[in-house]
Amino acid sequence: MAKEITARAEDYSKWYLDIVKKAGLADNSAVRGCMVIKPNGYAIWEKMRDQLDRMFKETGHVNAYFPLFIPKSFLSKEADHVEGFAKECAVVTHHRLMNNPNGSGVVVDPGAKLEEELIVRPTSETIIWNTYRDWIKSYRDLPLLINQWANVVRWELRTRPFLRTTEFLWQEGHTAHATKKEAEEEAHLIHEIYARFAEDYMAMPVIKGAKTANERFAGAEQTYTIEALMQDGKALQAGTSHFLGQNFAKAFDVKFASDNNIEDYVWATSWGVSTRLVGGLIMTHSDDAGLVLPPRLAPMQVVIVPIPKPTPSILEVAQRIESQIKALGISVKIDMDEKKRPGFKFAQYEMEGVPIRLGIGQRDIDKGVIEVARRDERTKSFVSIEGVDRYVKQLLDDIQVNLLYRAMHFRDDRTSFVDTFDEFEKVLEGKGGFIYAHWDGTSESELKIKEKTKATIRCIPCDNPSESGKDLISGKPSNQRVLFAKAY
Amino acid sequence: MAKEITARAEDYSKWYLDIVKKAGLADNSAVRGCMVIKPNGYAIWEKMRDQLDRMFKETGHVNAYFPLFIPKSFLSKEADHVEGFAKECAVVTHHRLMNNPNGSGVVVDPGAKLEEELIVRPTSETIIWNTYRDWIKSYRDLPLLINQWANVVRWELRTRPFLRTTEFLWQEGHTAHATKKEAEEEAHLIHEIYARFAEDYMAMPVIKGAKTANERFAGAEQTYTIEALMQDGKALQAGTSHFLGQNFAKAFDVKFASDNNIEDYVWATSWGVSTRLVGGLIMTHSDDAGLVLPPRLAPMQVVIVPIPKPTPSILEVAQRIESQIKALGISVKIDMDEKKRPGFKFAQYEMEGVPIRLGIGQRDIDKGVIEVARRDERTKSFVSIEGVDRYVKQLLDDIQVNLLYRAMHFRDDRTSFVDTFDEFEKVLEGKGGFIYAHWDGTSESELKIKEKTKATIRCIPCDNPSESGKDLISGKPSNQRVLFAKAY
Repeated sequence: MAKEITARAEDYSKWYLDIVKKAGLADNSAVRGCMVIKPNGYAIWEKMRDQLDRMFKETGHVNAYFPLFIPKSFLSKEADHVEGFAKECAVVTHHRLMNNPNGSGVVVDPGAKLEEELIVRPTSETIIWNTYRDWIKSYRDLPLLINQWANVVRWELRTRPFLRTTEFLWQEGHTAHATKKEAEEEAHLIHEIYARFAEDYMAMPVIKGAKTANERFAGAEQTYTIEALMQDGKALQAGTSHFLGQNFAKAFDVKFASDNNIEDYVWATSWGVSTRLVGGLIMTHSDDAGLVLPPRLAPMQVVIVPIPKPTPSILEVAQRIESQIKALGISVKIDMDEKKRPGFKFAQYEMEGVPIRLGIGQRDIDKGVIEVARRDERTKSFVSIEGVDRYVKQLLDDIQVNLLYRAMHFRDDRTSFVDTFDEFEKVLEGKGGFIYAHWDGTSESELKIKEKTKATIRCIPCDNPSESGKDLISGKPSNQRVLFAKAY
Repeated sequence: MAKEITARAEDYSKWYLDIVKKAGLADNSAVRGCMVIKPNGYAIWEKMRDQLDRMFKETGHVNAYFPLFIPKSFLSKEADHVEGFAKECAVVTHHRLMNNPNGSGVVVDPGAKLEEELIVRPTSETIIWNTYRDWIKSYRDLPLLINQWANVVRWELRTRPFLRTTEFLWQEGHTAHATKKEAEEEAHLIHEIYARFAEDYMAMPVIKGAKTANERFAGAEQTYTIEALMQDGKALQAGTSHFLGQNFAKAFDVKFASDNNIEDYVWATSWGVSTRLVGGLIMTHSDDAGLVLPPRLAPMQVVIVPIPKPTPSILEVAQRIESQIKALGISVKIDMDEKKRPGFKFAQYEMEGVPIRLGIGQRDIDKGVIEVARRDERTKSFVSIEGVDRYVKQLLDDIQVNLLYRAMHFRDDRTSFVDTFDEFEKVLEGKGGFIYAHWDGTSESELKIKEKTKATIRCIPCDNPSESGKDLISGKPSNQRVLFAKAY
């Protein structure tokens, strides 16, 4: 089974598609650019969703649900927003089909044309702020800390499972505040939650920073991002949190009366992460044998394989171990399938990224030991059956930490500080990765670099040290380095 | 606050809309027929979803996600299905907007017309069975037990929050089996899970039965339903489970090789419940003071109100009780708001359906007691502070049971056995409710009754006793009574 996937060194992009397919994560669908998220892939997304949802709720957010459709005119209300989102999107123009008068099948009923076209939401700021107008009258109604889990559609030309699909699943938070300061703090809070989730759960180290004006969300005054480095040296924007100022409040006329009864527009944030995170998870940890999952997001953390098959005596030990492990809150199953051989199963669980595999054979039982294989390092050892549950629990923690350290080490290895454009190009064509370089702060220099190299400014890192230097292109003075990379 | 809602006796339909609004469950949106599910309403749906999801997973089902869009031609592949679903639906015809050449705003780009229109899924049998063709080759790939949580769109003419909306949230299970028997068992298993969920969690008693051919799902060979009785004497179809035979397998050419290597079409089921359940919950338990929630689905089970406000000494007791209650796995909060008076808060929590309210005042503390108010019966009592946590836990269980018994009692009260059409009409115009009457098994008689009275056969109850009688309309012999009612 493992031999069927392309090696990363040979073709990273093909390796990625092979993993998605062979690990049962996603499949193409009959609809251009839309994927089917298969059970193994959806189970990972569920783990992500549940953890993020807990983190949002712990910080006072609640969930709600807004309509899938947005009246076309709403998109034009915020000037920058329309430029960013009103273009490539799915447009509903009719509400009825009828039997084809000229033959078989169904056709659009021309009599059922909508008065105003509806857009399938590419993001929900407009419909939500149109609703907030009715919900917010006074400072007592604020803050409004609302999140929704939803599907959105952006008509993408070139798609890739999880990373860029026409329809994707995400969460979008939309908050409303009485003061600028509070809205800014909210945008930072979520930025911090995203970074913590990426590192503590996905074991994916990220650089936190602000986007340049060019790369900001359409309608935002500030966009905060977390940027991760994939194994092929390209960056992945993994989550963004936007301070929207009063832009949407003004566009949708959402005002509130302060405690002094002074009327003002409401301050806003929005923020989101999507099924793209599954793509980031794959490209951070996986190897040529298949998917590698951090234990905290693995739908199945431990699998027990009877060798060569579940005889009564092996099964008795397996079930005892299974229930001990379960009692520690760890997800585990015994593979009882007698039609497949152990070697085949080993390859399959490696492919699917199960963090720990326990092999139980009669000879080992007689010696009081079982075989423990860890997926991250692909190493095996024999461990005493007595106390194997606690061993497994500790090992899951170790794997979680090891994956984060490994990814950090990789990233540090692929991070360069360069001072000339020549060097910049050399690094990009060579090892790739993150490049810290000086920038004069102008759109002009930023776009020139992008045009020449396809690399973009991923972010202006938070807590960036001040340092004098010269812009790579213009030679003009700069007082800090920013983070460049080619990106997904 | 409570005085603002219409009494049930006065106008049940207006009462329902008042509850939805005043309890913060849902709001109208700018899009015709689509509602905004507000935080209080969404939290109830989340509790329902999480519990159903556990029940599905415990019985071997896994979640996946299929595309929002369905190519138009797919809908025509199953002959009955197209009649049922291809009519009133949202049709995507274009994938781009452009700036209006004649002025401001955006218009549909005529150059971006789709080759084949896409339908926003009204249900997903067609796209899923088109996918299953690639997933199922042999008996080893079966059974496939997949569920998805998703939004769907049906262009409804007359809508009502939760009960009938253009877009709604639901789960749809789609399973594939090697034998007819196994698929039939699956349809029954889910029917049973739905009934258990309705009674054990929603405290909503249901009649389990099969639909008549007229009322079956478009494309099903058998539709099983759970039917609940609302307070106004109308029935609510609360969930359906369909045995689809080989209809979709044939329409999408999904065959498998058996263990004897004989090729056959796959057997199927599909089943779903939706946000409609929230409407059913409201109309089963609530009263003229607002929402009443069964404890097992109440997002907040207990609220503690300091009287008249959180002084340090009251707060100390409140926090101790809060943490004791929390430790028992019960959701609880202290209302710290000093701007609102206790009376206002009491009315608000009654409106929102919080099952238990604890009032803590200094004089009661001095006596070692606190006031416990139960929402279902609107009664209050004083309970010793010592041990109030265990008291609350027991009371939540009691409320859960009381609500179910109350609803069962109501239903029994509104259930009639009638033998003549005159009597049938009299009951319908009088107390309404469920009517058991004889039916000759023909579509003709069924439709005549519907035409004359608007009542329909809700189901042929499971485990129906055999009994001789005469059809109400035709006078022809019948060997069992079926369940009639007017329905939502």
